[in-house]
Amino acid sequence: MAYLSYPATGEADPMRAESVTQPAAGGSFADIGAKTHSFGSHDVIFYEGDPAKRLYELAAGTVMLFKLLPDGRRQVVEVLRPGDIFGLAKSEEHESTAETLTEAQVHEIDLRRIEQSPGLQRKLTRCLMTQMQALHEHAVLLGRKSAVERVASFLMYLVPNRGGVGCFGPKDGAEDGFDLHLTMTRQEIADYLGLTIETVSRVFSDLKRRGIIRIDRADQIHLNKVCGLCQITGIH
Amino acid sequence: MAYLSYPATGEADPMRAESVTQPAAGGSFADIGAKTHSFGSHDVIFYEGDPAKRLYELAAGTVMLFKLLPDGRRQVVEVLRPGDIFGLAKSEEHESTAETLTEAQVHEIDLRRIEQSPGLQRKLTRCLMTQMQALHEHAVLLGRKSAVERVASFLMYLVPNRGGVGCFGPKDGAEDGFDLHLTMTRQEIADYLGLTIETVSRVFSDLKRRGIIRIDRADQIHLNKVCGLCQITGIH
Repeated sequence: MAYLSYPATGEADPMRAESVTQPAAGGSFADIGAKTHSFGSHDVIFYEGDPAKRLYELAAGTVMLFKLLPDGRRQVVEVLRPGDIFGLAKSEEHESTAETLTEAQVHEIDLRRIEQSPGLQRKLTRCLMTQMQALHEHAVLLGRKSAVERVASFLMYLVPNRGGVGCFGPKDGAEDGFDLHLTMTRQEIADYLGLTIETVSRVFSDLKRRGIIRIDRADQIHLNKVCGLCQITGIH
Repeated sequence: MAYLSYPATGEADPMRAESVTQPAAGGSFADIGAKTHSFGSHDVIFYEGDPAKRLYELAAGTVMLFKLLPDGRRQVVEVLRPGDIFGLAKSEEHESTAETLTEAQVHEIDLRRIEQSPGLQRKLTRCLMTQMQALHEHAVLLGRKSAVERVASFLMYLVPNRGGVGCFGPKDGAEDGFDLHLTMTRQEIADYLGLTIETVSRVFSDLKRRGIIRIDRADQIHLNKVCGLCQITGIH
């Protein structure tokens, strides 16, 4: 599965466990004849303002949702992982643009088909709950965290099974390093974290200088100590 | 209904129309034996970390959800209006604190009862979609808008039927003024908009100096020209 270049897929993330690892709880959206589409990296699935007729479930890869202000300022509002739902709209039009960050596979679902299945309705509710909680956490990041805390939180979000409630730290004697492959450019990270690209680059350099990360390539980061990084996310 | 001191109740807001004015589409949560609780102003309904067992629907009044960082920084993540749902949790614990801003009435619902009713499931899905869209808009505000744009957006949010998609401006010959009663203190507004209280106060003074608003009392604001205010929200 070469397209799963995001290290923290839903399966590996305890925070997302319910919506991803228990598809049997309500069946899979694919079971009701959802069409599956394959996308390349940085393909647009739909634009803000396009007619909203379908619901989408990310099956593999990573997708970002973003909104634009008329003068071009952009905010990435969600970074989606397998199991996440998108394309929901309260009106006739999509309220954000969906663009892949990696190769991706997407199930396209007819909302009416879901409404006919109580099991899938429950699954949909659980997915939405999980995503709303992530949006609340993102609001705290955008509204109250410093630039360093934002970048540290973003990097921790990519480390599976660490940093959340119930994280017990590294295994005894383990080195606690971690290799990350970034699927977002510095500009995309800036647009997600509510920062400028200059600030994101400066924070990466600061973290490197302080020995917290090693930058092997622009998109290849080694975390020298996961716990050390977590300590500066603002949640301790 | 003295407790409805928020001028923009769900009923008056076209952006929230679907979830509020069409309860018949899926029945009302109150129909399935939801208990109704009355709260005073600034009562806590539940704390972050409390056991999450129930779902709540705001029936009347205004409620805010907020999250705290360990050092006391606070972010208000949602300001809820009648028809909104809260208390959903993906884990066993509430991930935010719910506190009333005004006197409020709240329906307490058993999620399992909703799961037994396809109509209520659909209604729940629609409510969550609407709230997720509001969270996306809030992320744009927190991540990309200036202090003035944030305060202007907040004030416009309180003017019913104006500022959204499809707003046609004031009626011909109408004066386009509007009286607002604020139910949030300057500190609560700051915590919602990701600003300091000093910045919020400074922006209110600036708007007054520029003749865009008149401050009759700390919680009583007159908008001199709704369209003029809307022009500085960043969406034009």
